[in-house]
Amino acid sequence: MSNADPEVLARAGLTHIIEPNDQTGAALVQVSGAVEAYRIIRDHTGPAPAHEQQQVAELLDAHGASRASLRLDAGLERWRPRAALADPQADLKLMSTLGGGIIHPGDGNWPQGFEALGLAAPLALWYRGTGNLAILRDPARLAAIVGSRDATEYGRTVTAELVHGLRARGICIVSGGAYGIDAQAHQAALAEDPPARARPGEPLLPATIAVMAGGLNRFYPVGNDDLLKSVHRQGLLIAEVAPGATPTRWRFLQRNRLIAALCAATVVAEARWRSGALSTARHAAEMGREVGAIPGSVFSANSAGCHRLIREGAAILVTDAAEALELLKLPDPAPADVQAQQASNDREEPRDHDGLAIQDLLLLDALPVRSPRTADQLAALAGLGMGAILGGLSRLSTRGLAERSGTGWIRRFPNGREPQRGAPEPR
Amino acid sequence: MSNADPEVLARAGLTHIIEPNDQTGAALVQVSGAVEAYRIIRDHTGPAPAHEQQQVAELLDAHGASRASLRLDAGLERWRPRAALADPQADLKLMSTLGGGIIHPGDGNWPQGFEALGLAAPLALWYRGTGNLAILRDPARLAAIVGSRDATEYGRTVTAELVHGLRARGICIVSGGAYGIDAQAHQAALAEDPPARARPGEPLLPATIAVMAGGLNRFYPVGNDDLLKSVHRQGLLIAEVAPGATPTRWRFLQRNRLIAALCAATVVAEARWRSGALSTARHAAEMGREVGAIPGSVFSANSAGCHRLIREGAAILVTDAAEALELLKLPDPAPADVQAQQASNDREEPRDHDGLAIQDLLLLDALPVRSPRTADQLAALAGLGMGAILGGLSRLSTRGLAERSGTGWIRRFPNGREPQRGAPEPR
Repeated sequence: MSNADPEVLARAGLTHIIEPNDQTGAALVQVSGAVEAYRIIRDHTGPAPAHEQQQVAELLDAHGASRASLRLDAGLERWRPRAALADPQADLKLMSTLGGGIIHPGDGNWPQGFEALGLAAPLALWYRGTGNLAILRDPARLAAIVGSRDATEYGRTVTAELVHGLRARGICIVSGGAYGIDAQAHQAALAEDPPARARPGEPLLPATIAVMAGGLNRFYPVGNDDLLKSVHRQGLLIAEVAPGATPTRWRFLQRNRLIAALCAATVVAEARWRSGALSTARHAAEMGREVGAIPGSVFSANSAGCHRLIREGAAILVTDAAEALELLKLPDPAPADVQAQQASNDREEPRDHDGLAIQDLLLLDALPVRSPRTADQLAALAGLGMGAILGGLSRLSTRGLAERSGTGWIRRFPNGREPQRGAPEPR
Repeated sequence: MSNADPEVLARAGLTHIIEPNDQTGAALVQVSGAVEAYRIIRDHTGPAPAHEQQQVAELLDAHGASRASLRLDAGLERWRPRAALADPQADLKLMSTLGGGIIHPGDGNWPQGFEALGLAAPLALWYRGTGNLAILRDPARLAAIVGSRDATEYGRTVTAELVHGLRARGICIVSGGAYGIDAQAHQAALAEDPPARARPGEPLLPATIAVMAGGLNRFYPVGNDDLLKSVHRQGLLIAEVAPGATPTRWRFLQRNRLIAALCAATVVAEARWRSGALSTARHAAEMGREVGAIPGSVFSANSAGCHRLIREGAAILVTDAAEALELLKLPDPAPADVQAQQASNDREEPRDHDGLAIQDLLLLDALPVRSPRTADQLAALAGLGMGAILGGLSRLSTRGLAERSGTGWIRRFPNGREPQRGAPEPR
C-alpha cells in the first residue's frame, strides 16, 4: 500500500479539504506542489504566505480567473475549517479495504482526457472495483452515455441498443450512476457477455465506469445499490472527492465535467429541457469533445433537452451505435453485426430506376405497361429526340426494363413488382 | 381573357412542349424571347439557326451547363415531335372554364422566389382556384410542409400542430398534394377558421397551395380528389406543365424544386430514408432557403429521412410551430398563443436555487433540513470561509431559503416542496 508516499498522502488529504474545481486549490498545488500545499493549508496560520499568494494570483490571472474569492487567502479561509478533519491515512486504509485506492497525475493510469481540464482537473482520483485502470488512459475507448433520471421506455430501449453496439466494439460505457438513463447504460453494459478485450492477449477492460459525485465508501443512490455493486464487481467506480463526502448539488455538477473529460465522445440518450446531462454535454463541447444526442418524439418532454442540444449545434444527431462510433473516430473497421446495422440504415430496397440518367428516366416513364408504343410515339411523349430514344431503349432492354413488342415497346418489371394503378409517384 | 396576347399564347404553348427544367428551352427563351422561341420550335425545319445555336451555347456555358444534350439542335429534336400537338388557345380556354389561367414572368404576381432558380425557372405557371395570387409574391408568408406518402399517426399529428401554429400567423401552407404528409398539411390548413388576412383590409390570402406535377385539368392522385377540390375552393393549385400533362417521375422531381423556390422555408415533417421530400429539402438548401426537419423515434423508418437531413446539416431540427416560424424570419411579434407555446418550451418550473452564485449554492447544500447547524459547522461542511457563510446566510434568508433557529440555521422551502429523502440530485 502506497500510503507512505507523501505525494499520495497529501493529495488524498487535499481531496478531503478542497471542493471539486476550486481553481485556487489547483493553482496552489501547481505553484507549491501537493505536499507543500497540504502543509500550508494544515499548518500555516494568519494571512497567506506572500510569495505563494503572488504566484497563485499570477497563475489564475494567466487563466483569466481573478475574482476576489479565488485569492489564496480567501482559499485558505475556506479550507482551514476542514483541514483538521482530514485523515488521509484512514481514508486510504478504508478504500483499500473496500477494494479501491487513489491515483494522481504522476501515475501511469492517470486519465489522458483530464489534460483538457487545465486548472479544473481533479487533484486525485479515488477508485473502487476490479476493472483495469489502464482504460482511463485511452479516451477513444470511453464513451459517455448520459440522460435524465426519469427515463421513458423509449429512452431505456434506445440506451440499451446504443450500449449493445458500442460494447460489440469493445467500448467502455461511462455514466454517472444515477437513476434512469445512467442506470440503464451501466446495466446494459454489464449484461453484455463476454466482456471485451482491447486486443487479443490484453487484460479484460471494464465494461462500464460509474463516475460518482460523493465518496466511494457507499453506493449512492440507494436504489442503485445492487447495480453499483455489479459495477464494482465487473467495472470501476471513480470519484474526485474523499470517502465520506456527501453528494451535494455542486459535486454533481462538477462530476459532469469529469465524465465529459474522460471520454472522447458523450451521447445524451434522453434528457429533459433542463437536465444535468445537458451540462455534461456542454462541458464536452467546450473541451472540443464529440457530443451526440438522440432524437425522439417532439411530444416527449424527455427528449426536449436532446432536441435543444441539436438545435443549438452543441450536439450531432445520433440514431444508432454506428453513428455513435463515428463520434469516437476509431480507425479500425466495425465488426460484421455493426456494419450490417449501418448498411441496413443506408438504404431501403433498390428501385428499378436507380442510377438511370435523366433522359432514360424520362423514357422509362413514357413506356406503356400494356399497349406497345412506337419509337416516334415515345419521342413525343417523353420529349426526347430520336437518338436519345433509340439509345435509351437499348440501355433499358439490357437492364430488363423495356422489351420490344411487335412494332413497338413496353415496360418490363424485372423484380416482378408492377406498380399500383395510376402513374408512379416517387415521393 | 388574355389569349390574344402573343406572349401568353407562346408561353402556354411552350409549357406543352418543353419538359420542366429543360435549361436549353429556358436559354432559347432568354435569347430570343418566348414568341420567337415558340416560332422557331414550331416552324423551323432542318438544323438549328446558327445565331441562336451560338447564343444558347454561350448562355448555358456561362451557367456551367454545356453537355451535348443541352445544345439547341438536340433541344429542337426533343421538342419538335410535341410541337404539332400543342394547342395553347384550347388549353387557355379549358383552364379558364375550370376557374384558372396562366401567369408568366411579366405578371405582377409572378413568384418572387423563382428568381433564385435562374435558368431552372419555369416558363410559365398554370393555376386554378379562388385564392389571391398576390401571395406568390411574398416568400416569407409561404411555408412548405412536405413529407412521405406513408405517414404515421405521429407524422400526421405533428403536421397538424405545425400547420395550426403557422396558420395562426397567417402563413400559407404549400405542399405537393400527395398522400400522407402532403394531404395532412393541406387538410389542416383548410380546417383553420377563419382564414387569415395578411393585414386588416387586405384580401383573404389562400390557406394553402398545392403544387402539382401534372396538368391541372384533373385532380391527382384520385384518392385526394375531395381534398384537392377543397384546395380549389379555398386556395390554389399551381403547375408548370400544361393541362393534360401526366405526372411522370421527372415531373414529380421537378415539381419539388418549385415548392422549394416558392417558400422562404421548407419543413420536412416526416420522411423515409429515401423520400421525394428530401429532394425538396435539398433544393431549398441549395437555394439558400431555410430548411427544417422534425425529429421522431429512431426506431421509426418514417423519421429516418428527417434525421438524415439534420445529421447532414441540410436541415435545422424543428419541434414546433414557433421554431418553424423562426425559419421564416418574420419581423412582427407572435400572437399570444404562439408566444405561450414557445415560453412553455423555454422553461420547466423554476427551482429554489435558480440564479444563486456558486458559493451560495454550496452553502444551500450544507444547510440542514431538521437539526440546525452553526455558522462554524456550515463553513467546514460547505468548504467556505466565514465571510462567505455570513453573507450567504443573509442572501438565502432574504430569498426564504434559510432561517435562523436557535444558535444555528436551517433550510427553508418557500414553495412548499421539500425534496425526497436523501441528498438532492440535479440530474
